[in-house]
Amino acid sequence: MILEGIVTTLGPTGEVNIAPMGPRVDPDMRRFLLRPFNTSTTYHNLRALGEGVFHVTDDVLLLARAAVGELIVLPPLMPAMAVRGWVLRDACRAYEFRVLRIDDRAERVDIEVEVVHHGVLREFFGFNRAKHAVVEAAILATRLHLLPREEIEMQYRHLGVIVQKTGGGQEQEAFAFLQAYVSRKTT
Amino acid sequence: MILEGIVTTLGPTGEVNIAPMGPRVDPDMRRFLLRPFNTSTTYHNLRALGEGVFHVTDDVLLLARAAVGELIVLPPLMPAMAVRGWVLRDACRAYEFRVLRIDDRAERVDIEVEVVHHGVLREFFGFNRAKHAVVEAAILATRLHLLPREEIEMQYRHLGVIVQKTGGGQEQEAFAFLQAYVSRKTT
Repeated sequence: MILEGIVTTLGPTGEVNIAPMGPRVDPDMRRFLLRPFNTSTTYHNLRALGEGVFHVTDDVLLLARAAVGELIVLPPLMPAMAVRGWVLRDACRAYEFRVLRIDDRAERVDIEVEVVHHGVLREFFGFNRAKHAVVEAAILATRLHLLPREEIEMQYRHLGVIVQKTGGGQEQEAFAFLQAYVSRKTT
Repeated sequence: MILEGIVTTLGPTGEVNIAPMGPRVDPDMRRFLLRPFNTSTTYHNLRALGEGVFHVTDDVLLLARAAVGELIVLPPLMPAMAVRGWVLRDACRAYEFRVLRIDDRAERVDIEVEVVHHGVLREFFGFNRAKHAVVEAAILATRLHLLPREEIEMQYRHLGVIVQKTGGGQEQEAFAFLQAYVSRKTT
């Protein structure tokens, strides 16, 4: 199964990188398969350092900003327990991991990791249609070059109705942010 | 915000009723606003007994079956702690509640409830596109009389791709169940 969350890694000079990631996970969450692109900072950082932190979160504003690379202000961080790196303090759960194996022969790199520490920070909200509509909108926003503009606009209209009907302030803000991003990039 | 979950209530002869419910919740989860239809068993049971249990779960097979009223086998249950009723043992969290106020002047009844006990059973999986695609498919399945058939079929094709790409066995089974239900009801 694919679990959509956020990975933090450390760069060569110690700077933190925050990126959305949808690893393939086992039910027991002891190993993940990350599949970043070979051009991504996450891949280069994991290749160099061999460790990082995967987070489960329901914070769709953070996910939306990270997805399109517009994370202007760093979210609150705290040092990881078992690896060199940072934990997102407002996440629901953090899985600190070490890299077991990298296969970078294709554009999507296979990085198998093993969880070495698991921290629970707070409860995941649960099923909320607006939160998921923002997740879908964020994925669309990263595929603008692959999809016709009318398709994007039609999907955004559909998702926007769900956000209005079932979301709170965070979901509305995240969706408005993505709408502004998409209209800036497509005009 | 709307939180999609499952409510259990007790009927007049002690039988359990299990129904999907999307209450409006506050961030602190101390009070909910349930909005069942005035024809629903949940409404009649809450009116008579004044208490029940709301569950947060990521079990989309249970949600899908409960949504269309085809819960053939009862899921594992355990007695509630603070109210007369049952807790779904495989849920993520259970909120035992008492009714504060009922306004049943409209077809959608407003039932304000107060949480009197909160139990954490296991972690919610997190964002998975397939799980949410099943939630959307289940909602569509309850609206067959309101939507044109081509609209339903188009949405199901779109949701099916997401389930195939990002789901596990439970999500595939839940989606196949809903597909079979919809095709039985629309032909």
